[in-house]
Amino acid sequence: MDSAVERRTFALQIEYDGTEYGGSQFQINARTIQGELERALERVSGERRRVGFAGRTDAGVHAGAQVVTVRVPAKWNAAALSRALNAKLPEDVAVVGATAVSEEFDPRRCAVSRRYRYQILNRKVRSPLLRRSCWLVPYTVNEEAVRAAAALLIGEHDFAAFAGPVKPAGASTVRRLSAVDVGREGPLLLLEFTGNAFLAHQVRRMVGTLVEVGRGRLSIDEFSGLLRRAEPGAAGPAAPAHGLCLVGVTYEDLAFGVGEGMGEIGG
Amino acid sequence: MDSAVERRTFALQIEYDGTEYGGSQFQINARTIQGELERALERVSGERRRVGFAGRTDAGVHAGAQVVTVRVPAKWNAAALSRALNAKLPEDVAVVGATAVSEEFDPRRCAVSRRYRYQILNRKVRSPLLRRSCWLVPYTVNEEAVRAAAALLIGEHDFAAFAGPVKPAGASTVRRLSAVDVGREGPLLLLEFTGNAFLAHQVRRMVGTLVEVGRGRLSIDEFSGLLRRAEPGAAGPAAPAHGLCLVGVTYEDLAFGVGEGMGEIGG
Repeated sequence: MDSAVERRTFALQIEYDGTEYGGSQFQINARTIQGELERALERVSGERRRVGFAGRTDAGVHAGAQVVTVRVPAKWNAAALSRALNAKLPEDVAVVGATAVSEEFDPRRCAVSRRYRYQILNRKVRSPLLRRSCWLVPYTVNEEAVRAAAALLIGEHDFAAFAGPVKPAGASTVRRLSAVDVGREGPLLLLEFTGNAFLAHQVRRMVGTLVEVGRGRLSIDEFSGLLRRAEPGAAGPAAPAHGLCLVGVTYEDLAFGVGEGMGEIGG
Repeated sequence: MDSAVERRTFALQIEYDGTEYGGSQFQINARTIQGELERALERVSGERRRVGFAGRTDAGVHAGAQVVTVRVPAKWNAAALSRALNAKLPEDVAVVGATAVSEEFDPRRCAVSRRYRYQILNRKVRSPLLRRSCWLVPYTVNEEAVRAAAALLIGEHDFAAFAGPVKPAGASTVRRLSAVDVGREGPLLLLEFTGNAFLAHQVRRMVGTLVEVGRGRLSIDEFSGLLRRAEPGAAGPAAPAHGLCLVGVTYEDLAFGVGEGMGEIGG
């Protein structure tokens, strides 16, 4: 299939507003980020090809810098490819960084760490301006209790309690979190999680359970017990998808310095 | 009309995402904030009544705390009225504060000051997550030049150059700005304007002209001349509506401490 034309592989950073999507991965009956990217790529390159993802995000989850790989005819450079794709992509998806990689580069397996941000709007009344990006928690949340429980998540643990209730046979539920940050900006409570990898729904279930702690409905001891006992699905409810954003994926020796026409501008 | 039933007047703080609206003020052929508020009020109180506004915002402009007045049967208190309205309003409009006022209170004429925020995304590539709230300026902007020009706006001036090209006969174009703040948060350039009142399109035309200065297309001297000569409509183009947000309107002796169930929650 690659015989006649020489090709190059690019890693792209993708930003998206997940509100109108059924998730990142291709589905027959829903709009997906993968579907939009593959359609745009076909319009740009004339070829229908699979786009590989660093990780899947659920319906409604956003990304500031999801990473995907695309393989295109070798005439493309990073900047031209990004511009061409952005001209074809809908307004809620964009390429925000690009760099050439080797053909063997796998965005999922090569990822060293992922960073997710969860935004909670902690006030009593809903916010029209933040409704797409924040979970409204209209109860008093003890920030210090959240911070104390969140600190327990750091390190290598069996996160089975924060995964689905049925543990897939043979699959490990051990993951390593290198950082959990809890910050407040006015009525916003911001939670950031950095780790090597995450189980499906793990971040949302960690957030939902941390909010239970913050509301005084779960003690720090009980929270700690969820990690120690690792009983599948034992943790609190998952926080809603729309508060979650995949803000970054990092790789060794890979910088999305991108080409002309992309990236941020200094002051 | 008010004969049979005793009534009370409330001032309400309204937050809205203006993206899907033809502006704040009622129009026959477009969705408007006033139209939504009056419809919700009718469903709540059973009466069709005019809602008074502190100021009009254009199509696409947002508000964090627009102020309006409503007159309702005296059985309502601030918290109950707010909750009832929020249950009927669409997701992109909400009551975020409420307080009882005298029947004579006029939200426009009683306002002491208004504060507008304009958000510029200063990077080369469009942002799906900020597309509704930021103007994308993909050029290098000299922040110090913007700051120097913005400082000239403070005080009482004839802002005719920043109004429409035809000066309404007899209407004064003199306004007083008490503060202009220019800040940067990463790729965001944030401009805040506080003044007693603003001409139609004045904030957007000040922003558009300040960006011309920041891009080096207009000198500080030329900018200063626009204020000195006050030639109607002489200033630069208006920045687009979607970057603008009316963030506050202040009154003497009026606090939107609101009732139970509203407002922000402390940590």
